[in-house]
Amino acid sequence: MSERSGGELELIEWIRGHAPAAPHVPLGIGDDAALVRNAGGPDTLVTTDLLMDGVHFELASTDPRLIGRKALAVNLSDAAAMAGVPRAAFVSFALPKSGGRALGERLTDGIQQLAGEFDVVLAGGDTNTWNGPLVINITLLAEPAGDGPVLRSGALPGDRILVTGALGGSLSGRHLTFTPRVSEALKLREAVRLHALIDLSDGLATDLRHVLRASGAGAIIGAAAIPVHPDVDHDLPQDQRVDHALRDGEDFELLFTVDADDARRLRATPPFDTPLSEIGEVTTVAGELLLRREDGRSELIRQAGWEHGFDV
Amino acid sequence: MSERSGGELELIEWIRGHAPAAPHVPLGIGDDAALVRNAGGPDTLVTTDLLMDGVHFELASTDPRLIGRKALAVNLSDAAAMAGVPRAAFVSFALPKSGGRALGERLTDGIQQLAGEFDVVLAGGDTNTWNGPLVINITLLAEPAGDGPVLRSGALPGDRILVTGALGGSLSGRHLTFTPRVSEALKLREAVRLHALIDLSDGLATDLRHVLRASGAGAIIGAAAIPVHPDVDHDLPQDQRVDHALRDGEDFELLFTVDADDARRLRATPPFDTPLSEIGEVTTVAGELLLRREDGRSELIRQAGWEHGFDV
Repeated sequence: MSERSGGELELIEWIRGHAPAAPHVPLGIGDDAALVRNAGGPDTLVTTDLLMDGVHFELASTDPRLIGRKALAVNLSDAAAMAGVPRAAFVSFALPKSGGRALGERLTDGIQQLAGEFDVVLAGGDTNTWNGPLVINITLLAEPAGDGPVLRSGALPGDRILVTGALGGSLSGRHLTFTPRVSEALKLREAVRLHALIDLSDGLATDLRHVLRASGAGAIIGAAAIPVHPDVDHDLPQDQRVDHALRDGEDFELLFTVDADDARRLRATPPFDTPLSEIGEVTTVAGELLLRREDGRSELIRQAGWEHGFDV
Repeated sequence: MSERSGGELELIEWIRGHAPAAPHVPLGIGDDAALVRNAGGPDTLVTTDLLMDGVHFELASTDPRLIGRKALAVNLSDAAAMAGVPRAAFVSFALPKSGGRALGERLTDGIQQLAGEFDVVLAGGDTNTWNGPLVINITLLAEPAGDGPVLRSGALPGDRILVTGALGGSLSGRHLTFTPRVSEALKLREAVRLHALIDLSDGLATDLRHVLRASGAGAIIGAAAIPVHPDVDHDLPQDQRVDHALRDGEDFELLFTVDADDARRLRATPPFDTPLSEIGEVTTVAGELLLRREDGRSELIRQAGWEHGFDV
């Protein structure tokens, strides 16, 4: 549904190339959140997400509180992907004129409830009405934990690749109700030395590729090790179930890499109850993403979603 | 065109009432920007604005670079309204699928050019496509100047009310090309003791009312002193020209209050070339906004835009 298309990714690259760096933004476009330097104080992590009716949710068939919840949850997941502690949210609405007032209140209820659970303050925003579909943008400010944020770019050959939770089939409903892995990220940050960290929004294959590209590395992952979510149709052949876990997107689980010792340590004494799965290993072959099927065959995972996107 | 409606203002009040305060957000919903406290460091000012095709601009008849420019400029104006120094911008797009790639580049060009002029870094964002109209959200981070931001709530009876520039008729084109009064705000902050400060986005009458409500005060302003912009039709009767200056909105000039001595000082030695006009005085009559017409009559300015808004 909302997997980022190739055209979108190309445009993001274009924008990135046209946004000059600056000393007070040590980390700009290209990770899950940006890092803004505050003279004499701690840095600020900033992430922003725009959600549109018909793309990220279906207003006609969804409780608006869940839509508001999701708009904040995806940002919390981005903060988790940098091992950040979420602090303050800024909410912009484009509300349909008809019924907009009641809709705005219910969206806010959903945002506010999740914000309370994560100790986030709804600190500002912008409220508008129009004759168009519902659009919500949330910008979230977070504080980096420990020595600073964990980036996508730190994966090293030989690292083990792990994911939290289970993947695939999120769009049947979980994408509205998932728990952002904020506390898991912070506990991992304390327990081990995280080399690379990302949240799974575009789908395991695409997001792992983001890590590999940023790190100049490759990977091999094992189909048998990929935790397929029960939401994926059980009647499908196993290969197809794994493909759903690889491609569906909107899992909002964490993917990270650590060295072999830390992976062993996490298996022996997991720092939380959320399941952890070791799904593969980082290799030296930059850009090559291999999948070892359960019958032993290996196949290249080609880039998904790169073909469609903009019409022009 | 985009004056905030009564329904929108009521919803903002509702949201404000449902957003609990917190020590690390000393200033939340209700001013031009929020203030987020960074432990051990300087505070961060945050403002966000969502712009929609058909409401804040007309894509069909406008150079997209000017649309991008405006999306950043309105945020810069909000930063100016708190006497903030703009630092980093986060840009979210909902781009129409057809032609979205080229549109995204031209919007970014417009944003980037203005960002360069104000030393702002384009630090992140979110790029999406859909079958809906163009929507842009920008969140801007700024640093408070001097001893902290200047709020809407500091107006005192006897204060003089001043505005920069000239008002009215902005929608004929100026709303796309105005210069945000960032440097003027910082120079005023240095030159005098600003009691209250706001930028004129909803129109002089509405925005002055925001200051009065926040300050628990009233005001009387003189029609003859209101600087009517040449963009307002010269063939209209003078009273109607003043009404445009009071109501049109999107002027993005500054309105502020200072004591009588500081007002005199600013008249004697203005700290910049942008025109400054003293248009009236703050009174003790909470909520009462009086206009002295040029023929000597005084009239109450009633609340504009409070009637329309949401359909339900």
